[in-house]
Amino acid sequence: MATHHVVIIGGGFAGLFAAQSLRHAPVEVTLIDRRNFHLFQPLLYQVATGGLSPGDIASPLRGILKTQKNCRVLLGEVMDFEPQDQRVILRDETIAYDSLILATGVKHSYFGHDEWEEFAPGLKTIEDATEMRRKILLAFEAAERETDPTQRAAWLTFVITGAGPTGVELAGALGEMAHYTMKNEFRAIDPAEARILLVEGTDRVLPPYPPDLSRKAEANLERLGVTILRNTFVTAVRENGVTIQTGKVTQEIPTHTVLWAAGIQASPLGRRLADRTGATVDRIGRIQVAPDLTLPGHPEIFVIGDLAHCVGPDGQPLPGVAPVAMQQGKYTARQIVQRLRGTPMPPFRYLDLGNMAVIGRAAAVVNLRFIRFGGFAAWLVWLFVHLMHIVEYENRFLVFIQWAWNYFTRNRGARLMTGQDIIQIKKRKL
Amino acid sequence: MATHHVVIIGGGFAGLFAAQSLRHAPVEVTLIDRRNFHLFQPLLYQVATGGLSPGDIASPLRGILKTQKNCRVLLGEVMDFEPQDQRVILRDETIAYDSLILATGVKHSYFGHDEWEEFAPGLKTIEDATEMRRKILLAFEAAERETDPTQRAAWLTFVITGAGPTGVELAGALGEMAHYTMKNEFRAIDPAEARILLVEGTDRVLPPYPPDLSRKAEANLERLGVTILRNTFVTAVRENGVTIQTGKVTQEIPTHTVLWAAGIQASPLGRRLADRTGATVDRIGRIQVAPDLTLPGHPEIFVIGDLAHCVGPDGQPLPGVAPVAMQQGKYTARQIVQRLRGTPMPPFRYLDLGNMAVIGRAAAVVNLRFIRFGGFAAWLVWLFVHLMHIVEYENRFLVFIQWAWNYFTRNRGARLMTGQDIIQIKKRKL
Repeated sequence: MATHHVVIIGGGFAGLFAAQSLRHAPVEVTLIDRRNFHLFQPLLYQVATGGLSPGDIASPLRGILKTQKNCRVLLGEVMDFEPQDQRVILRDETIAYDSLILATGVKHSYFGHDEWEEFAPGLKTIEDATEMRRKILLAFEAAERETDPTQRAAWLTFVITGAGPTGVELAGALGEMAHYTMKNEFRAIDPAEARILLVEGTDRVLPPYPPDLSRKAEANLERLGVTILRNTFVTAVRENGVTIQTGKVTQEIPTHTVLWAAGIQASPLGRRLADRTGATVDRIGRIQVAPDLTLPGHPEIFVIGDLAHCVGPDGQPLPGVAPVAMQQGKYTARQIVQRLRGTPMPPFRYLDLGNMAVIGRAAAVVNLRFIRFGGFAAWLVWLFVHLMHIVEYENRFLVFIQWAWNYFTRNRGARLMTGQDIIQIKKRKL
Repeated sequence: MATHHVVIIGGGFAGLFAAQSLRHAPVEVTLIDRRNFHLFQPLLYQVATGGLSPGDIASPLRGILKTQKNCRVLLGEVMDFEPQDQRVILRDETIAYDSLILATGVKHSYFGHDEWEEFAPGLKTIEDATEMRRKILLAFEAAERETDPTQRAAWLTFVITGAGPTGVELAGALGEMAHYTMKNEFRAIDPAEARILLVEGTDRVLPPYPPDLSRKAEANLERLGVTILRNTFVTAVRENGVTIQTGKVTQEIPTHTVLWAAGIQASPLGRRLADRTGATVDRIGRIQVAPDLTLPGHPEIFVIGDLAHCVGPDGQPLPGVAPVAMQQGKYTARQIVQRLRGTPMPPFRYLDLGNMAVIGRAAAVVNLRFIRFGGFAAWLVWLFVHLMHIVEYENRFLVFIQWAWNYFTRNRGARLMTGQDIIQIKKRKL
């Protein structure tokens, strides 16, 4: 009998943890990803704000898995599925599986306004982060060269949509940059005059957190010069401004820099697999999975990580955070092994250890099961937990060095404008 | 009387050193660059081969110069000059100067075959380096997926044109990657089977060095699996191969990865300034300067760094290396100050401290004035000298950490394929 073949699609936290947890299992593993690296997404906002380099939070998948002899890494793009024949269709190849794990995650969503993406980059990939970084730095450069006060003010206005963890972290980092990192770097403008607007649809930042932690985070943000616009929605995004609506009041905000942290939608592969298997997808395209993370009628297909709509004990879907993905990856690996042994495991249960968000230097909020707190202690916890989850030791060290450096000097050394030509500074006017 | 205004175009070694040397001078300085960072070009090949991240060798110009109160940094593109009115024309602004320093350097040249650039990236910018990195990593990934042995061999063939320092450093780093870094990372191929061909028009590598150092470098390269093709020229570059010629023998080499380290040409701004001032340019577009680095009839215009054709004591133009650029930057600053005092300096004299090239881990060649040597000692000297010339302390530290890590583990953590979509793997066939 041939060795049981597990095909994993996606090398994020869910897929990578599944692969690694199969290290000693009597199976063959093929991990397929479109990219050649695992990305530590929780720190992507630090690349977008020049605190870290892309290489610091990305680790080559082949390097991570090179000693795992039963695992093969394949750089490739999955196009379709043939669940009846247990096969995955790549662009140029077909791969048979005994167990399939789909973990391709989510990307950002513009609530049906895809035309906004051009002016309001989201933050899911390395390219997103370097583009966001380019836009932020360009805005300060353009302001420095602008002589008209109205237009200068527009260049110095930054709108961040969505006050979830990503929006809060971006706003905090931008505040740090404007008030500390860039101090004295310009001659015509004072970067501290930047207006940083954090637009949130509910009545507080970090809505999934307890209200007192939201208040702590809001106080920290305001200290960094961030203006929080509560109960407010973005109703239009253009090249030179956004329209926001609070209740019935509509307002035009001239700006060239809109950072999108508002919505997500599932990877399109999820819907494709649902079509092929008759599984159900939710409003944002995530696949509804059974308690053991498989699809109805397909016990050999697992969907895990952000792409899975997995109902928690409270009847709500589990949040799209790294701990859920890691635990689901490990569970799936164990389930595959136990089934081969004829003793399947009970349903997946998420052990919620809490969550945390960082607001700036020495400020964070931590919400653990039995305790919650903010400030410096929270920041240290945040730091430690994040450092410990960076996959490569070398990157862990590099990130630590840069954080330490930033803590003492407020410097952000990776402030490069790369990629697109930067010449178009003045072509884009109000 | 208004303060003497020095306009510097280009924030490389020459321009940056000129600006910094004017720190205490009674002048106003405007440093104009198209990019917002100073790039440590000598280490660009390490970004191209995944050893360092772009941020590690790039430092924001504003950050470097923020405490220099008499210096303003301008992100902008110079379009033209009006030397009769002492003005520089930017895309959207005109700036008057009392002294002008042009230091926009060189880029790579394809000897009139610009159509080769698409298939054979050079190495002068961060984008060049990340594109080269993408091509190198893609070749190994494509080989891993290729089943036809002929085509697999083509993916595993790397052609580097030109065995100057850049070509030698690239070839050495590629050899390290293939033999050490990537060991055990693939399942279908052995990366050590990669053919690395270093094509050189003369009869030895590093032609400006003494022959015994060339031999040392060649021995080191061959130990890393590099094949040196002497007296050989590339006569055609296509998507799926190159044509090389040795004497009268022509050979076709199937490959997808050609790295260009063969020729340079001056920044086009040089020719523009020469047209406006009647200065002479040499064969590759560098401006011929007087012994005090100014243009004939224009004592207020200095051309320095790689862009200057400055004749040395041996009648040959000075080489395009960082020490020349740094010394010329300092000289020019001092000359401007001394002229303001009415006591101009004698002509520029280059103090040649020697040169060095690195071949791989623990191997380099060093050619100092009174001593030359290779091996581990040379590598330590190379390491120290390069570390000490990185502008920011933070980057110095980050580079040191990564070199130390690489020394012990042979790992290269920044092996990311970014930018273009990587999906086209199989679309490009022989």
